[in-house]
Amino acid sequence: MAQPGSDFPHTHLLSADQLQRNHLDCIFQRSDEYLEQLRLHGPDGFSRVLNGVVVVLAFIESSTRTRVSFEVAAKRLGAQTLNFQAGASSLSKGESLVDTMFTIESNHPDLIVVRHSAAGTPEFLAGRLQSGIINAGDGRRQHPTQGLLDAFALRNRIGSLQGVNICLIGDIYHSRVARSNFDILRTLGANVAACGPGTLMPDSLEALGVRVFHKLDEALEWADVANVLRIQRERMDVGLLPSLREFQRQFGISGRHMQQHPELLVMHPGPVNRGVELSAGVVEHKRSLVLEQVEAGVAIRMALLALISEARGLV
Amino acid sequence: MAQPGSDFPHTHLLSADQLQRNHLDCIFQRSDEYLEQLRLHGPDGFSRVLNGVVVVLAFIESSTRTRVSFEVAAKRLGAQTLNFQAGASSLSKGESLVDTMFTIESNHPDLIVVRHSAAGTPEFLAGRLQSGIINAGDGRRQHPTQGLLDAFALRNRIGSLQGVNICLIGDIYHSRVARSNFDILRTLGANVAACGPGTLMPDSLEALGVRVFHKLDEALEWADVANVLRIQRERMDVGLLPSLREFQRQFGISGRHMQQHPELLVMHPGPVNRGVELSAGVVEHKRSLVLEQVEAGVAIRMALLALISEARGLV
Amino acid sequence: MAQPGSDFPHTHLLSADQLQRNHLDCIFQRSDEYLEQLRLHGPDGFSRVLNGVVVVLAFIESSTRTRVSFEVAAKRLGAQTLNFQAGASSLSKGESLVDTMFTIESNHPDLIVVRHSAAGTPEFLAGRLQSGIINAGDGRRQHPTQGLLDAFALRNRIGSLQGVNICLIGDIYHSRVARSNFDILRTLGANVAACGPGTLMPDSLEALGVRVFHKLDEALEWADVANVLRIQRERMDVGLLPSLREFQRQFGISGRHMQQHPELLVMHPGPVNRGVELSAGVVEHKRSLVLEQVEAGVAIRMALLALISEARGLV
Repeated sequence: MAQPGSDFPHTHLLSADQLQRNHLDCIFQRSDEYLEQLRLHGPDGFSRVLNGVVVVLAFIESSTRTRVSFEVAAKRLGAQTLNFQAGASSLSKGESLVDTMFTIESNHPDLIVVRHSAAGTPEFLAGRLQSGIINAGDGRRQHPTQGLLDAFALRNRIGSLQGVNICLIGDIYHSRVARSNFDILRTLGANVAACGPGTLMPDSLEALGVRVFHKLDEALEWADVANVLRIQRERMDVGLLPSLREFQRQFGISGRHMQQHPELLVMHPGPVNRGVELSAGVVEHKRSLVLEQVEAGVAIRMALLALISEARGLV
Repeated sequence: MAQPGSDFPHTHLLSADQLQRNHLDCIFQRSDEYLEQLRLHGPDGFSRVLNGVVVVLAFIESSTRTRVSFEVAAKRLGAQTLNFQAGASSLSKGESLVDTMFTIESNHPDLIVVRHSAAGTPEFLAGRLQSGIINAGDGRRQHPTQGLLDAFALRNRIGSLQGVNICLIGDIYHSRVARSNFDILRTLGANVAACGPGTLMPDSLEALGVRVFHKLDEALEWADVANVLRIQRERMDVGLLPSLREFQRQFGISGRHMQQHPELLVMHPGPVNRGVELSAGVVEHKRSLVLEQVEAGVAIRMALLALISEARGLV
Repeated sequence: MAQPGSDFPHTHLLSADQLQRNHLDCIFQRSDEYLEQLRLHGPDGFSRVLNGVVVVLAFIESSTRTRVSFEVAAKRLGAQTLNFQAGASSLSKGESLVDTMFTIESNHPDLIVVRHSAAGTPEFLAGRLQSGIINAGDGRRQHPTQGLLDAFALRNRIGSLQGVNICLIGDIYHSRVARSNFDILRTLGANVAACGPGTLMPDSLEALGVRVFHKLDEALEWADVANVLRIQRERMDVGLLPSLREFQRQFGISGRHMQQHPELLVMHPGPVNRGVELSAGVVEHKRSLVLEQVEAGVAIRMALLALISEARGLV
């Protein structure tokens, strides 16, 4: 049953822009509780919260990192999980996504966590199925739990994000992580910017209120936090990137940058191409949040699974 | 402990023909309960029925649809499941099926759900292992849970099957679904027939009391229900089928057939080759039971897992 | 909480040589309890012992047999398991093992069961991560749960191993199973020997107190127990083995050997290359322990998961 007076009304999580300030507070507050218990590494008090809830992990576009994080989150709460991957499925027998999803739905899972290469898949499914849908990445569009965990990890390091300058760096054009970050960071009162090769910057950024830098040094001068996106090697094949070496030279962050900007914090959604976006020393730098982000991920996903289950009256 | 006076004595499910009328009643009655709770999509009352029971899903011949249905069914009841697939197994290191199965058995799973391309595998294993065996499809021979779910979905739509005319359509020769359907439907008092290309009809049908039609129009004239089987594209490679287009022309069901036969119900075990066995409009027609069949599958499999566990004294 | 006065202090299991005699007694005593309950094949009393514990199965080098045994063991105790396999992981995106493992760690699993082709991986991880590490095989070095289950299965057949003559046969050089066996058997007071082709025997055996035989007949004359290792076919490709047929002729055990040595017991970690290391009749001989070994495996692994969880204060 939804808690009386609950601040979290959502029965799906489709896009970061559906989350208002009080929804974010509610997610972060619940995540705080779970993170504290996770860190105790002892007998836990939340292992039966989602007892009897069945969660399908439908990663039609493959991912280990995000899938594992959702799977651990669900299992920590006592939910049952079921992996459904494209390769193993009837999709390879020529079945359409809709048919496959109706098949999954007919099994009556309570929640479906979906990743798909087509933007809009989560909305499409939420409009047609009865299960709760959680977007784990749709094309270039949204990856809301990544945006949430980035903001949560950063808040845990520095407190309020009000007025903080945060610059996303790298391949902004193809990045659903960037989109979800922009939405959530602005709701939290941060100032957002983007910096990357001209071929990888969308035209619409400034219209969206995102400040644009073309040179890394200028971006780092402005920024309190650099959130560096992963470079997809396949972008080079289509001529959008000259080479990893050239990208590294222009936009990679090394020890020198950390020295020049002694307050700068560095984030990366992982997995890092070491020596490309970040040098090895930066990954493990005390002003890097890379591992805190992963840890934040399981707490955030536990909170979302629990809050959405409560909003749906499942528990 | 087996319930006193239980109508369900079976500690394995090997073949549809082992199920007498009162066993079917017992399975359907239990499935009714589970289906009702599944549809509530709320906190469930059955999530710990099979607590402590370990179910191995040994799909030596791969399948997503049936495996997912069994896995959801087991998890809904609180059982632990373990996937064992051919590709990942020691089978690829030259181990025989028997050795592999003895290995699985030595781990003392309570139940083994097995799919295998060799007819008779479930009986073979039931005679040699201590675990309860559930046949999830053996070669061309039997697929009893599909037969059960087809009958259950149909009964839920129309009530008693006594005297109802049901025609299986398509590749009867290679179909374990057809064999299990014939067994169960006749036990329930239905009249059964088959219709398909001459190359895909076994000789023995009429001896088995199955009426044979060679033309779709004659079959649909007779039938109250058409249960259309999936065409395996590989049959064309060996010359048993001229082409999908030719099959569709002679045996595919389209909107025209639904209009000509205004009472006809249509079933299909899925996944449908849309535009071949059924046109897209037929799949979603209000007289199609395709999605009800999938939904029935999880309820039927929950009932079987629970009844067999009870008959074995596991719970 | 660790039991007061517990004889089992280990919070990781990295190598068989960390286990003293009283630790082995403690493991075997717990395994006795679990094995008895497993064999009852009825409602079990241990299904919630590890409730709330999350176990990652990180088989970076693939294995079905050992992975299934650990997975059943964990699930029998009510733990949640999560499979992490190399192929599906970010490892294929160029991420290093350490980064991958930090990622897994950041999800806060309680225990990580790891198999890896690089010797020393478990120690490396135990020094860097907070989770409990269980070695499921590292390169040619150690496979401690195999050594434990071999000793446990043998003790269950013959009682004390004090003064018993046990000969490992086959590819000693590449065998982590042999190393773990030597460690545990000597701690239990057995006399150990090795026998195999000269190209597959390490130089150091006699320095380690392992007696060496070059002829099978001499080994079997001496031995009470022959523990025959699996031959890896890939050894032939690099010229270390002439042929499977030649190996079988010189070191394979057949019905003739069982007759000539009427007290000899035979073991094999599986999967057996039937007709190579053991003839088919020997696998199923009443003096073969092959299936008892597999059965012992799940009990031993349950005991270890429980004891380590207790030592870590997880339950």
